[in-house]
Amino acid sequence: MPLGHEVAHLSHIELLTPVLDKSVAFFVDYLGMTVVGGDDNKVYVRAFDDYEHHTLTLVAHSSSGIGRTNLRASSPDALARRVKALEGAGRSSGWQDGDPGYGPTFVFQDPDGHELGLYWESERYNPTKDLRPALKNQAQRYPGRGVSVRRLDHVNYLGADVEANRDFLRDQLGALVTEQIVLDDGSIAGTWTTFTNKGYDAVYTRDRTGTTGRLHHIAFATDTREDILRAADIALEQGVFIESGPHKHAIQQTFFLYVYEPGGNRIELCNAGARLVLAPDWETINWTEAERAKGQAWGMKTIESFHTHGTPPVGNT
Amino acid sequence: MPLGHEVAHLSHIELLTPVLDKSVAFFVDYLGMTVVGGDDNKVYVRAFDDYEHHTLTLVAHSSSGIGRTNLRASSPDALARRVKALEGAGRSSGWQDGDPGYGPTFVFQDPDGHELGLYWESERYNPTKDLRPALKNQAQRYPGRGVSVRRLDHVNYLGADVEANRDFLRDQLGALVTEQIVLDDGSIAGTWTTFTNKGYDAVYTRDRTGTTGRLHHIAFATDTREDILRAADIALEQGVFIESGPHKHAIQQTFFLYVYEPGGNRIELCNAGARLVLAPDWETINWTEAERAKGQAWGMKTIESFHTHGTPPVGNT
Amino acid sequence: MPLGHEVAHLSHIELLTPVLDKSVAFFVDYLGMTVVGGDDNKVYVRAFDDYEHHTLTLVAHSSSGIGRTNLRASSPDALARRVKALEGAGRSSGWQDGDPGYGPTFVFQDPDGHELGLYWESERYNPTKDLRPALKNQAQRYPGRGVSVRRLDHVNYLGADVEANRDFLRDQLGALVTEQIVLDDGSIAGTWTTFTNKGYDAVYTRDRTGTTGRLHHIAFATDTREDILRAADIALEQGVFIESGPHKHAIQQTFFLYVYEPGGNRIELCNAGARLVLAPDWETINWTEAERAKGQAWGMKTIESFHTHGTPPVGNT
Amino acid sequence: MPLGHEVAHLSHIELLTPVLDKSVAFFVDYLGMTVVGGDDNKVYVRAFDDYEHHTLTLVAHSSSGIGRTNLRASSPDALARRVKALEGAGRSSGWQDGDPGYGPTFVFQDPDGHELGLYWESERYNPTKDLRPALKNQAQRYPGRGVSVRRLDHVNYLGADVEANRDFLRDQLGALVTEQIVLDDGSIAGTWTTFTNKGYDAVYTRDRTGTTGRLHHIAFATDTREDILRAADIALEQGVFIESGPHKHAIQQTFFLYVYEPGGNRIELCNAGARLVLAPDWETINWTEAERAKGQAWGMKTIESFHTHGTPPVGNT
Repeated sequence: MPLGHEVAHLSHIELLTPVLDKSVAFFVDYLGMTVVGGDDNKVYVRAFDDYEHHTLTLVAHSSSGIGRTNLRASSPDALARRVKALEGAGRSSGWQDGDPGYGPTFVFQDPDGHELGLYWESERYNPTKDLRPALKNQAQRYPGRGVSVRRLDHVNYLGADVEANRDFLRDQLGALVTEQIVLDDGSIAGTWTTFTNKGYDAVYTRDRTGTTGRLHHIAFATDTREDILRAADIALEQGVFIESGPHKHAIQQTFFLYVYEPGGNRIELCNAGARLVLAPDWETINWTEAERAKGQAWGMKTIESFHTHGTPPVGNT
Repeated sequence: MPLGHEVAHLSHIELLTPVLDKSVAFFVDYLGMTVVGGDDNKVYVRAFDDYEHHTLTLVAHSSSGIGRTNLRASSPDALARRVKALEGAGRSSGWQDGDPGYGPTFVFQDPDGHELGLYWESERYNPTKDLRPALKNQAQRYPGRGVSVRRLDHVNYLGADVEANRDFLRDQLGALVTEQIVLDDGSIAGTWTTFTNKGYDAVYTRDRTGTTGRLHHIAFATDTREDILRAADIALEQGVFIESGPHKHAIQQTFFLYVYEPGGNRIELCNAGARLVLAPDWETINWTEAERAKGQAWGMKTIESFHTHGTPPVGNT
Repeated sequence: MPLGHEVAHLSHIELLTPVLDKSVAFFVDYLGMTVVGGDDNKVYVRAFDDYEHHTLTLVAHSSSGIGRTNLRASSPDALARRVKALEGAGRSSGWQDGDPGYGPTFVFQDPDGHELGLYWESERYNPTKDLRPALKNQAQRYPGRGVSVRRLDHVNYLGADVEANRDFLRDQLGALVTEQIVLDDGSIAGTWTTFTNKGYDAVYTRDRTGTTGRLHHIAFATDTREDILRAADIALEQGVFIESGPHKHAIQQTFFLYVYEPGGNRIELCNAGARLVLAPDWETINWTEAERAKGQAWGMKTIESFHTHGTPPVGNT
Repeated sequence: MPLGHEVAHLSHIELLTPVLDKSVAFFVDYLGMTVVGGDDNKVYVRAFDDYEHHTLTLVAHSSSGIGRTNLRASSPDALARRVKALEGAGRSSGWQDGDPGYGPTFVFQDPDGHELGLYWESERYNPTKDLRPALKNQAQRYPGRGVSVRRLDHVNYLGADVEANRDFLRDQLGALVTEQIVLDDGSIAGTWTTFTNKGYDAVYTRDRTGTTGRLHHIAFATDTREDILRAADIALEQGVFIESGPHKHAIQQTFFLYVYEPGGNRIELCNAGARLVLAPDWETINWTEAERAKGQAWGMKTIESFHTHGTPPVGNT
């Protein structure tokens, strides 16, 4: 049996950018997110319905890429259990103060070297009056500006060894492996894992360059597929680079759009419709090379850059 | 702390109807569900993306109403723990054979007398060739007929004593209470509870007649709000009675349509967009009488029959 | 046979408001329109895909209400023919200079006293660089702010004598009467007329107060029904008053939302899907009182204020 | 000045197929159209909101391809004027009896040899009781089966000489040329023309093989872009070949999906949102080779078969 619900959900992520101001403008003007703090070197932004303090920390850096990914434990006990296990596995960097709004955070690395944090304490976001929603079951006023993403959806890491990272998420953190790409030689080219009823929260796909610690993309959820079509139109008007989509993935059946933020990081907008993974004993779906050769759900071939572009660029950290 | 994830999800429900053939036609032709078995007195139908054997058992009966609601435990251990607790609470009717495709089921009653079942073993639905989906991560072919609902979403019971039923779900089954209607006298007129990351799986609203064991409605999830607008058009063309909607609830922000199936039971079609409840320590949202007086999200007054129509009709069982 | 295509389309409208600044904010922030000129007493605003200079002139006035409605002739010859006919009918106020961007305009009144203008010359809107669209077949950049309405859709006048106004539009201007409400006494309570392939461009509904020259509403087209659902959410967040909807009219099958702008004028957001009136000999659809008693398309009863609220308020001009 | 509104709209089309039964099944089961007559060699099918007798005649033939395209004149006088002009131009094949439900039809050829028909008399479609719509302003009950297309939208011919065909449509039939592809050598590779307020009704694109009289595709309108996404899902489930899309054209901004019917003819599903061409003096939009090299609206490269596949296949008539 799987470990079960030790991690509640993916929470806040640090995204590195060599052009902080431009990146902030992208997240605010294009995605419709809200700045809730920061300084000259980092800016906290949030999606309107994330219930915690912030969704991303945009960090000024020499290159693009991903910093720490933070996960919220499902209870104080679950946090204690995971810390003990991670310390036993020798991956711990120890406790740190959390970001503003977040409590003490236990920091560790996945086998590929991506930094993760696990915490329990979290202040509920308390909007200022001008950001207060009309309906009290929503974290913040719907912005009605740009894409207006609802919440962080998932992170997709590049990894030199997908299997090792998958096993780590599954065995140390209790992730459920919902779908995979299994190559003809039996190796795993991609793995989709979840802590929730969403089809996936954290993904590893193989880094063809063999580099470690890189990011493929982070994704935000919109309410409808129409929001994603509209996002493509707004991207076109605002000069945001569209890499691929809108289209539908065969894997997980996600309706998607991929764009690059000005720092170079790939950003996905995604919508899963009403699809959820409810089976506690969900059997992993394995996609073969032959099946992947059919392209995306409706037959579109995957664009080449999707297999090559990661951040930071290779040799640039 | 809450009990946690002891129940995985709402599963299959028995719905009683005095006009079995007409009810079957409604679920097949209007909702786009599929018959997967049955006999002269009961018919099993399924929504295309429910992963188990069937979604509803339509049962020929002298009146409308709800039979057993079945919940899947999150693990064999969780099942054992819940059985022990329920037996201790004196609500058990003991073990029974499950429906076709389902294993042994522990049967019990909520304080209002609605029958529930809890089980672990479940055969994965295995479609015949003509119902096999193009994408292997989907349970069954998308029907493209009528509304084509994806899955069962929730059940809304009427209850003489909402608080007692809420406490039972929370304390015996581990439900999280996400939203409530709190009247000026402090009593609870409605409670929304969840076992998953959806905003709600099981709801109790006060039965103004004081009758016990009745049904307000069961609901099916569609992929988009557009599906629900289209569902209203198809209802109009097929002569299906529309009670209310399409509109958006303030509570849970669900986009909804309420219709009656020919047996008289109220059926909801619902879509929550990308809204999820991810916080493991979600603070219950309490709606006051004054807030409810504002009507639905966009101001539509709630139709009177919504407060009075339940099944079976009072005095008719 | 009808007169045919003498009028090309409804063009720009003067809307009167006692709170000019607030009204401008509504059209810019909520509807996503763009200011393109004006002074202390009038402001020109445009919808992003109207091809001419502006869509509305917002005019500071002692009350709410409608000023001149301008129609573009389908050719210089058609203009000359209509002017001659209107002069013969004794309704002319003569030629006036057009608004900025518009040529000489022949001004006249409908039987109810609403002022209309007919013109041919029109400068194509030439956006400044920051408003230039990515695709050259679009008049202006898609704003991605608020509702972002595409274009003016129609005007709905209140009229003391619907038949007289209908006959005037049909016989003097060549409008096609597509739908009507015919009361049991044979009188016409509402008439929908078109100059284009849209189901309607100009509507008269009976003013129950017997007042003349009032406005029921003006309407803007959005691209999708989803845009209208989103418009309701944004109205809720921005404190815009929602009178009714989103819902679908039985008449013309329009998906609608009615709100009031701060000056008190009713504004509709509408979407007709792909519905068009293509038959040149379209037979007028007559709705009876019994049919109207069924409510809107999906059964919602028409809200009382829809029959009573017009601008200016009675006794206030 | 243009000729003006001599042609009211595109009406019914003959489509040739070597596999009549399979083609009928495609139009009925996949597109949701309705059979309204025919015999062993031809079958009449209609889209639910076309107001005339039928939309397509599916004709058993040795190959795929297009037969006669029928246009409805805007009045008896317009018909007489066009007949006189076409006879003068020497392209007439004379009068023939129309299809069932259609009056006498004047038959002629475009410069490329495609057969066209022009007529005035037309019986309004009168549905049998089981196909009668709930709302009387709709031609037929919404089918709620498969894609459920609303109406015929446009025809796209392949032509050896695009300019000659464009001039013919414009000068003999009064079409307005709304958009064009102008190659660097000044020649026209594609021309979009309209008789209505839709952006286009009839298109010619260059046949690279130099063959005459071929078809690129015919297109049907759906109410929403969501309908087109759903159409792609249904195609996938029913085994209908998807050539390209869903995506958005830069030209005309149409949201599209291209599939092949079993006879080999390309079929488009399209939605234009609320976009209309209202300007009677619309200035033709000319797209350069450099602009076309950017791909579709959101950057997708046009698939190669879109430039090569036409019906009938070359050398096969």
